[in-house]
Amino acid sequence: MEMLDDLAATLGARNCLTSADDVAPYAIDWRGAWRGTPRAVLKPASTEEVAAAVRACAAEGLAIVPAGGRTSLCGGAVVQENGPPAVVMSLERMNRIRDVDARDFSLVAEAGCIIQNVQQAAAAVDRLFPLSWGAQGSAMVGGALSTNAGGIRTLRWGNARDLVLGLEVVLPDGRVLNDLRRVRKDNSGYALRHLFLGGEGTLGIITAAALRLVPALKRVETAFVAVPSPEAALNLLSRVMGSGAEVIAFELIIRRCMETVERHGTPNGIRIPLPLESPWYVMVELAAAHTAVPLREMLEDTLATAMEAGEATDAAFAETESQRANFWRIREDYPDLARREGPAISTDTSVPVSAVPEFLARVAPALARRWPEGQLLALGHAGDGNIHVSLLAPPGMERGDWNARARGAEEVVNAIAVELGGSFSAEHGIGQSKRHAMATHKDPVALDVMRAVKNAIDPRGMMNPGKMLP
Amino acid sequence: MEMLDDLAATLGARNCLTSADDVAPYAIDWRGAWRGTPRAVLKPASTEEVAAAVRACAAEGLAIVPAGGRTSLCGGAVVQENGPPAVVMSLERMNRIRDVDARDFSLVAEAGCIIQNVQQAAAAVDRLFPLSWGAQGSAMVGGALSTNAGGIRTLRWGNARDLVLGLEVVLPDGRVLNDLRRVRKDNSGYALRHLFLGGEGTLGIITAAALRLVPALKRVETAFVAVPSPEAALNLLSRVMGSGAEVIAFELIIRRCMETVERHGTPNGIRIPLPLESPWYVMVELAAAHTAVPLREMLEDTLATAMEAGEATDAAFAETESQRANFWRIREDYPDLARREGPAISTDTSVPVSAVPEFLARVAPALARRWPEGQLLALGHAGDGNIHVSLLAPPGMERGDWNARARGAEEVVNAIAVELGGSFSAEHGIGQSKRHAMATHKDPVALDVMRAVKNAIDPRGMMNPGKMLP
Repeated sequence: MEMLDDLAATLGARNCLTSADDVAPYAIDWRGAWRGTPRAVLKPASTEEVAAAVRACAAEGLAIVPAGGRTSLCGGAVVQENGPPAVVMSLERMNRIRDVDARDFSLVAEAGCIIQNVQQAAAAVDRLFPLSWGAQGSAMVGGALSTNAGGIRTLRWGNARDLVLGLEVVLPDGRVLNDLRRVRKDNSGYALRHLFLGGEGTLGIITAAALRLVPALKRVETAFVAVPSPEAALNLLSRVMGSGAEVIAFELIIRRCMETVERHGTPNGIRIPLPLESPWYVMVELAAAHTAVPLREMLEDTLATAMEAGEATDAAFAETESQRANFWRIREDYPDLARREGPAISTDTSVPVSAVPEFLARVAPALARRWPEGQLLALGHAGDGNIHVSLLAPPGMERGDWNARARGAEEVVNAIAVELGGSFSAEHGIGQSKRHAMATHKDPVALDVMRAVKNAIDPRGMMNPGKMLP
Repeated sequence: MEMLDDLAATLGARNCLTSADDVAPYAIDWRGAWRGTPRAVLKPASTEEVAAAVRACAAEGLAIVPAGGRTSLCGGAVVQENGPPAVVMSLERMNRIRDVDARDFSLVAEAGCIIQNVQQAAAAVDRLFPLSWGAQGSAMVGGALSTNAGGIRTLRWGNARDLVLGLEVVLPDGRVLNDLRRVRKDNSGYALRHLFLGGEGTLGIITAAALRLVPALKRVETAFVAVPSPEAALNLLSRVMGSGAEVIAFELIIRRCMETVERHGTPNGIRIPLPLESPWYVMVELAAAHTAVPLREMLEDTLATAMEAGEATDAAFAETESQRANFWRIREDYPDLARREGPAISTDTSVPVSAVPEFLARVAPALARRWPEGQLLALGHAGDGNIHVSLLAPPGMERGDWNARARGAEEVVNAIAVELGGSFSAEHGIGQSKRHAMATHKDPVALDVMRAVKNAIDPRGMMNPGKMLP
């Protein structure tokens, strides 16, 4: 394709990959579930190069799949199989942190910056970039913002969109929407930024962002708590939130998940801090940015009262930073360890926080009734109502067989969440894997407005086709 | 008009006003600067009635100006003079708080709820609804959200949009976009909510919102501090933020504003806590939701260090709740007291927080050069870079004369803010009064995208015509 030769001249041959071997790594998604071969992989190094590449693709009628760390769990960053011809536009070379301003509590990062590097740049000036989740060592800013990433600290600092002060976006026609400002207040027109945040690259390509930093944490206290039920966990959450302490994480974990960690994780040195005698566990973390806050006493007082009230039965505190890291490894290593147990049908639902107990009380029997051979796994960010339920195959069953047999399990969980006023896609986004759920559950009026917006900004449908919109 | 007779039958005659006397109060804005007579004032009492009224207006080709407490400072809630025929749709009768859920930290309020009533409903269950500004006793939820209201606590909890979990919106064709959910995480498609939040009623009518509550404050410490310069104030801000204390307000006030308060406010009982010998003052407020936080010591320590560093020269603490209320009256009564000094050209700009000193250093001489007879007034939310600069007329001059003579003063301030990466409309919005600034300063690419979005959602331009878009 002549246009690709021209682009190779502009970007450099190494940054315009077309051979089958070169594009292969970009043709399969993180989970290995979605495949699609791009005509080329483009790696622009600047906003201008992104814009030039977009214009060239537009002229040629080539669709564009923006990509970063490509850790999407929904097939969002690969070309749609049997879709229109498309290139992958990888932002990985746009990895500069353009500016860090401690006094302003802000940082400007390009789309290809790895989240962990942003965290480190903030820490170097005694600030915190609070966005945090398992894939932070691979995930990049552009993808995190395009999918409005969540994670373990949204309870306190919100999702990715809440940490953005300004954006730079290349539009489908190659023009640059330059709103890369560090102002905290701006009411000059529609908040266009929020269309691209969480827009999954279907409206344009985020090339850089001004990000909000917060004061560095000076004290952190983490407890691992045995609780008798989700209802008890919710009462504990309410108690700890209501105490006025700064709660930065509140994770709920079913015992079976802990057993998985014990079975597979011990060789790697993970120690479970409590005996596995409770049906449910909670990880709660408090933090303070000021050393004078008596955080340990606050947590101990709350947990003591909770135990008296029967909301908790046992608790272990992280006494050292390495113990704390170990507590979190339980939570963060779990997804990988779980794979060794066998294939599972996984979900990503949220409900109002106060509906978490009812959600779990309805999901468990609904799944058990239809798939008595499956095992319920459940853990997640109870503090914001986002529980990841999965249904594990019986021992020895292959993925293909379980997928076929447990077809519909995701829909059972989604339907209950939606009935309770929740969402079928809490933090992972839609990509390719949740499009059917969009068709089933999304308000038709909202879908109409979404399509009108898509058509207004990307009338030719060139940006990440086959994603998000059903 | 037959359609209005039909609507009177639907809404009740008292809720479909058409006589000149009845519509007169709705024909003039809060500041008395904008006038426009509606064909009728409609007062629906439910979402269904709003939808029915919108459909009737759409069929008749009547434009709609949504209104609530009508405290817009930009002429946003009145009909455009010489614009297309329009009705005012007042949401004032939709004033129910539909639900308060303390355990969920959420509340569902209709658009006509007065902000102060929402604050009180939250306080009744030991929660805080943190949105707060001078007009909170009149302003309503719908208007606050449609203009993404700011105020004195955005430093800690963000603008109105940051406090919304879900929205109910009647679209220009009368359909209802029902996203009135209380989920904390939802990545199922475009964040359409953020188009209506801050959309100034140009895309649809917000009829209800699920709002986020936070733990009630258990301790508050407020200090009134004399500082030698804006640069010193900024260093103090950086110090107090960096200390890790929870800073919920940080207001910067020039001495001349304090003198105004002293001159006109004393009969009402306002006491200025410090001698007026400093060129600038700061009001700083710390808060904690937990009683164990040693807030007073934290503030005293920080201010002591700041004084040693020359960032502050004197400080007074509010020792009682009534002293604290008095401190805030200085700030909140100021706009009314200032009117007694004479007419002023006012602005609503923001810059990155770290650029506040340079902004003021450039604005003062730029205004003095062209209007040496004017007096610079400056106060605002320095903690988020939003300083309200005004230029006061010389004694005895009439508003009309000063408006003519100081024409261009707003533009001088706007241009400096924009040059420093700021906004010409930080928190008041655009309405009618800032449309010229939109035309001058808004990125043309952003304007194009805004127009495309407007056209996609309100293709006939029936919603609040003559507002926001230039």
